[in-house]
Amino acid sequence: MSSVIGKNIRLSVFGESHGEAIGCVIDGLPSGIKLDMDFINAEMARRAPGRHKTSTPRKEADSPHILSGVLNGVTTGAPLAMMIENTNTKSGDYKDILTVPRPSHSDYPAYVKFGGNNDIRGGGHFSARLTAPLVFAGAIAKQILADKGITIGTHILQVGSVCDTPFDKIAVTADELTALSKKQFAVVDSAAEDKMCAEIEKYKKDLNSVGGIIECAAVGLEVGLGGNIFDTVEGRLSQILFGIPAVKGVQFGLGFGFAASGAKDVNDGYEIKDGKVALTSNNNGGVLGGMTNGAPLVLSVAIKPTPSIAAPQNSVNLQTMQNTTLEIKGRHDPCILPRAVPVVESAVALGILDIIME
Amino acid sequence: MSSVIGKNIRLSVFGESHGEAIGCVIDGLPSGIKLDMDFINAEMARRAPGRHKTSTPRKEADSPHILSGVLNGVTTGAPLAMMIENTNTKSGDYKDILTVPRPSHSDYPAYVKFGGNNDIRGGGHFSARLTAPLVFAGAIAKQILADKGITIGTHILQVGSVCDTPFDKIAVTADELTALSKKQFAVVDSAAEDKMCAEIEKYKKDLNSVGGIIECAAVGLEVGLGGNIFDTVEGRLSQILFGIPAVKGVQFGLGFGFAASGAKDVNDGYEIKDGKVALTSNNNGGVLGGMTNGAPLVLSVAIKPTPSIAAPQNSVNLQTMQNTTLEIKGRHDPCILPRAVPVVESAVALGILDIIME
Amino acid sequence: MSSVIGKNIRLSVFGESHGEAIGCVIDGLPSGIKLDMDFINAEMARRAPGRHKTSTPRKEADSPHILSGVLNGVTTGAPLAMMIENTNTKSGDYKDILTVPRPSHSDYPAYVKFGGNNDIRGGGHFSARLTAPLVFAGAIAKQILADKGITIGTHILQVGSVCDTPFDKIAVTADELTALSKKQFAVVDSAAEDKMCAEIEKYKKDLNSVGGIIECAAVGLEVGLGGNIFDTVEGRLSQILFGIPAVKGVQFGLGFGFAASGAKDVNDGYEIKDGKVALTSNNNGGVLGGMTNGAPLVLSVAIKPTPSIAAPQNSVNLQTMQNTTLEIKGRHDPCILPRAVPVVESAVALGILDIIME
Amino acid sequence: MSSVIGKNIRLSVFGESHGEAIGCVIDGLPSGIKLDMDFINAEMARRAPGRHKTSTPRKEADSPHILSGVLNGVTTGAPLAMMIENTNTKSGDYKDILTVPRPSHSDYPAYVKFGGNNDIRGGGHFSARLTAPLVFAGAIAKQILADKGITIGTHILQVGSVCDTPFDKIAVTADELTALSKKQFAVVDSAAEDKMCAEIEKYKKDLNSVGGIIECAAVGLEVGLGGNIFDTVEGRLSQILFGIPAVKGVQFGLGFGFAASGAKDVNDGYEIKDGKVALTSNNNGGVLGGMTNGAPLVLSVAIKPTPSIAAPQNSVNLQTMQNTTLEIKGRHDPCILPRAVPVVESAVALGILDIIME
Repeated sequence: MSSVIGKNIRLSVFGESHGEAIGCVIDGLPSGIKLDMDFINAEMARRAPGRHKTSTPRKEADSPHILSGVLNGVTTGAPLAMMIENTNTKSGDYKDILTVPRPSHSDYPAYVKFGGNNDIRGGGHFSARLTAPLVFAGAIAKQILADKGITIGTHILQVGSVCDTPFDKIAVTADELTALSKKQFAVVDSAAEDKMCAEIEKYKKDLNSVGGIIECAAVGLEVGLGGNIFDTVEGRLSQILFGIPAVKGVQFGLGFGFAASGAKDVNDGYEIKDGKVALTSNNNGGVLGGMTNGAPLVLSVAIKPTPSIAAPQNSVNLQTMQNTTLEIKGRHDPCILPRAVPVVESAVALGILDIIME
Repeated sequence: MSSVIGKNIRLSVFGESHGEAIGCVIDGLPSGIKLDMDFINAEMARRAPGRHKTSTPRKEADSPHILSGVLNGVTTGAPLAMMIENTNTKSGDYKDILTVPRPSHSDYPAYVKFGGNNDIRGGGHFSARLTAPLVFAGAIAKQILADKGITIGTHILQVGSVCDTPFDKIAVTADELTALSKKQFAVVDSAAEDKMCAEIEKYKKDLNSVGGIIECAAVGLEVGLGGNIFDTVEGRLSQILFGIPAVKGVQFGLGFGFAASGAKDVNDGYEIKDGKVALTSNNNGGVLGGMTNGAPLVLSVAIKPTPSIAAPQNSVNLQTMQNTTLEIKGRHDPCILPRAVPVVESAVALGILDIIME
Repeated sequence: MSSVIGKNIRLSVFGESHGEAIGCVIDGLPSGIKLDMDFINAEMARRAPGRHKTSTPRKEADSPHILSGVLNGVTTGAPLAMMIENTNTKSGDYKDILTVPRPSHSDYPAYVKFGGNNDIRGGGHFSARLTAPLVFAGAIAKQILADKGITIGTHILQVGSVCDTPFDKIAVTADELTALSKKQFAVVDSAAEDKMCAEIEKYKKDLNSVGGIIECAAVGLEVGLGGNIFDTVEGRLSQILFGIPAVKGVQFGLGFGFAASGAKDVNDGYEIKDGKVALTSNNNGGVLGGMTNGAPLVLSVAIKPTPSIAAPQNSVNLQTMQNTTLEIKGRHDPCILPRAVPVVESAVALGILDIIME
Repeated sequence: MSSVIGKNIRLSVFGESHGEAIGCVIDGLPSGIKLDMDFINAEMARRAPGRHKTSTPRKEADSPHILSGVLNGVTTGAPLAMMIENTNTKSGDYKDILTVPRPSHSDYPAYVKFGGNNDIRGGGHFSARLTAPLVFAGAIAKQILADKGITIGTHILQVGSVCDTPFDKIAVTADELTALSKKQFAVVDSAAEDKMCAEIEKYKKDLNSVGGIIECAAVGLEVGLGGNIFDTVEGRLSQILFGIPAVKGVQFGLGFGFAASGAKDVNDGYEIKDGKVALTSNNNGGVLGGMTNGAPLVLSVAIKPTPSIAAPQNSVNLQTMQNTTLEIKGRHDPCILPRAVPVVESAVALGILDIIME
């Protein structure tokens, strides 16, 4: 059971959806970083609900409150603790008992694992709300990476049956990536936005939700980052990415597209360009032998449809051990992809920062 | 740079393809395990080359030699060190200089990372030969897991355009999984073997190689294994799986198939079955909130085509910094999937053992 | 740079002496523990200043505020975050510049390490105030250990030239240890208290401070805890103990007393007692080969005199690079031993809990 | 149970005293280090038995055999595996049963921990013979540190009632430290050698053994190494040092000598010297707040008398559960200090290397 990650930058995430506060401690940050709070808050806003018409109108106060590790806006080198108060919690002393686990949520295995002691209100510690501290830490990571010439950008590659234009894996630029982070609905091809919104609306009307794929790229990475067998860029990033609720797959470059390919078509050759070694294609997504190879790092993650839907679902009553039907109340995002974009980006930023600090 | 993995069972892998020996140290094994050396050797043989007509006829002596941690065939609780001598190494003192990196291999980033000091003969420490110690460790893990009622099985799901029947994610049984490990060419549908072999032969004749997908399942896992945010079953297994050369994607359950799905169709409901909570479907591949949910664990990994092909490829001469063309000599597997099956299975076994030892 | 410790129970400590808050995140706690808040608060009070006549009359509000991981007083299995607000901080935006480092404090190396960005007010993150979260975590650990029949007790063995009666290493009992934790001034021999207080008073009048030794014992430990070469009970406890400011030595059993001893006199023999294997003496302090041997665990730590004294001391001005003399203002403990007792005990409790959770 | 240590340089030690081989894997070494095998072998010889008249005349072949990670004498950046064959093992298949545990050895707790499965021949994995791989790794660490201007030296400070001249903590030089490593019997004051040898002889004649203290110093360390609360230089070195059999205490600077001291006498002041900040004394042993402060790092460790003595001792028969008397046969070192000197030095070297590689 661990909500701690990282070797050089250790992120410890805490909190429950309806507890008093959520937050994190970031241990190992370099001293002397002047935090760009406007940027951090803008990043937090990218993840916050209610920003786009496809999102639930719930309002969460995701204002990060720094408790330590920063003096006059500059990191001190001591652990940076941050807290976000949960303003929507009720003060009453009560204990919900899990009776009917929501399908495809953590409810049931958490109930078994924690003997029924876990906080189930809103998903507790397993709530997607816990990605807010990850975005906070990721914003700081992105700021540090930017100073080193590394830029990360992310877009919605697919929602249901609608696809955006994928990154040009070998030619994607820092400018394109930066532009994406300023879009409310991050797609490369503006025309994709309307189509995706229509797709989401279709599922929503059907009391349904829809999954998708998020693609992320980073440029400016040195050759040779990452490393030996169990220290691969892929493995280290995956461990963080799978910490994001709803992520069910991670692939680099062509990923599963390699299955139907021949080496002749997908091997990435080399050429001398401007006096330097360059790749002629980037099907490997910028990673070879677990190490960066100088081409853009390109990865994508599969996001499952939000499991909370209003339609009736088959479940069981854990107290009576009878079959039952569950209808989940409340407003839920019919598609989590738009809000997951900065979360995936933050996970990648944090992982890269940890790797380059070797 | 690390070839060490695991929290409770720490596996440290060493060796180079053409060095004196490869091997591993397994630290944290329980004492009192009577090793089934016949089983271990059979597992090593599954990975060894030259066993199937699609494989290269090269012959490697993959005989594991245990140096410590075992007394009269029983684990002592001390670190288990194992060594496989490389019989094909030449004794002469020489130093190859990397001049022309092989496309899509680790050659170029390793050259940059290690300043040209890394052993490049046969890929050195990055060679797929280094998966032999992983299979050795995985065989021990599988033996321990079997004693706990956990069975793991693996098959080739796809090679190029040919697909095998996927596992029935909710109904797959231990018997089916065990049967697979005894097949020389691990497919569920026997008819798939000939088609896949024909596909491989087609690529081989074209001086090409082909990728594919390997699917792995484990049954008998308790509910609630794995855990909180950064301690997910998915993340922990991925970090080991991406340590296997050529793995470019990892997905659980439907994985990337979730992208075009609605929750109504893919949410996994519950029912009471034989007085116990059971799932009615298993699109999540047995993992929810990072924890096992009692359904079979089902995952698949994307394997890229062996990058070593005889056809001429674009590369560069790192000494002269000129473009050049590379033709890779020697016999290479036109498809690594058949031999990768036990490697993927071992990675999963090792990861599960580490998780259940919490 | 890390304020994170532990393999199974991970404690992440944050905060600065004059920052907004100090606190910790405890990751890996079992679920279902009903926290005894009266006990926790009593433990916090043992460490708080101003409780005993030898201590500075400063008043700190050391009231732990739990942010997550506890629901209705019971641990949920999610990370437990705790915060103590620093009530004495000023709101103004300012930045102290370290000009004259205090001798024998962390000031100078921290200044170099953090490039002058560290918070120097009151020692910042290096302040002994940061032991408050350790005592909080230790109190929880002690509660869990008590449920497993493990009792820990601690006393001041020496202050300056005055010594208390050491623990009878082989015969010390849980009752004796428990009794110690209820004493305001923890000594075995009540007569030692007055003598130690007189000794402290003597140093205080001389604008000086004095060091000492704290001895800690734990009973009820199973045989065989801890382990192989780098996983020794001694090593794991030492890493936490040296995290306590002013600790400069750690020894087990006779420790440095072994130097002038012969094996004939100090080897610990065995005998059958009540049908069980028992030790006839305990010079090894309950640890052999890095593992507990069934005898009480007995260790002691050397505590240096509080470096903050009012007498003038030689230092340098880091801005002008001139020699100077420093007189430290304010009230400081002339002897930190009384308050360090629960801190040492907490470190040991936390270490033992981490070890038994293997 | 772990024989793995280190964050940046991971050392995994394996083997049993009478097994086939002992050795280690060093993961994380920089590439491009031309190993000085003469130096490494000389270091191994310092630890080997039979070199000095006080040592047992047993002969062990401690010839390190490098299996991987080195090509043409230069490190490749891949894990360095090393093996030392145990030439004195018998080939027969047998299983000793522990009947009478040797007092003050690991025998009894290991028997309980490993359920009687551990290899007890010669202490198995807990044998002091396992320090040979530590010395091997330490020799490489010392070579790397020397290139960075860091020198480590060690001497026997005390044996029984005989003391050597302690290091001048503030003024000790690299030359003095280097000179020590060339002495067969490492003492600062040559006159101490004869006295110590006489002391050892006295114990030996009495079928007894004697303990002592080893002091180690390192010069050339930058200011600010090590760090925050749980990442102290003291804690990190202690965890390795307590991995050496017979070490029962670790102290820095005055260590336990601080107990009877006042801050006025032991605080280390500052002065400007040659335009730089310097310490006027070094009672803290070069560490403040867990970080190096620019003064020499000075520590000492307590070594207990070799528990293997020929005199009869009280023990129990674990099979019959009766009291019995044990007489240990064979030749054993009456004092392990001379051979422990390079082991302590290696542990410190390895720890420092791990710290400076942050």
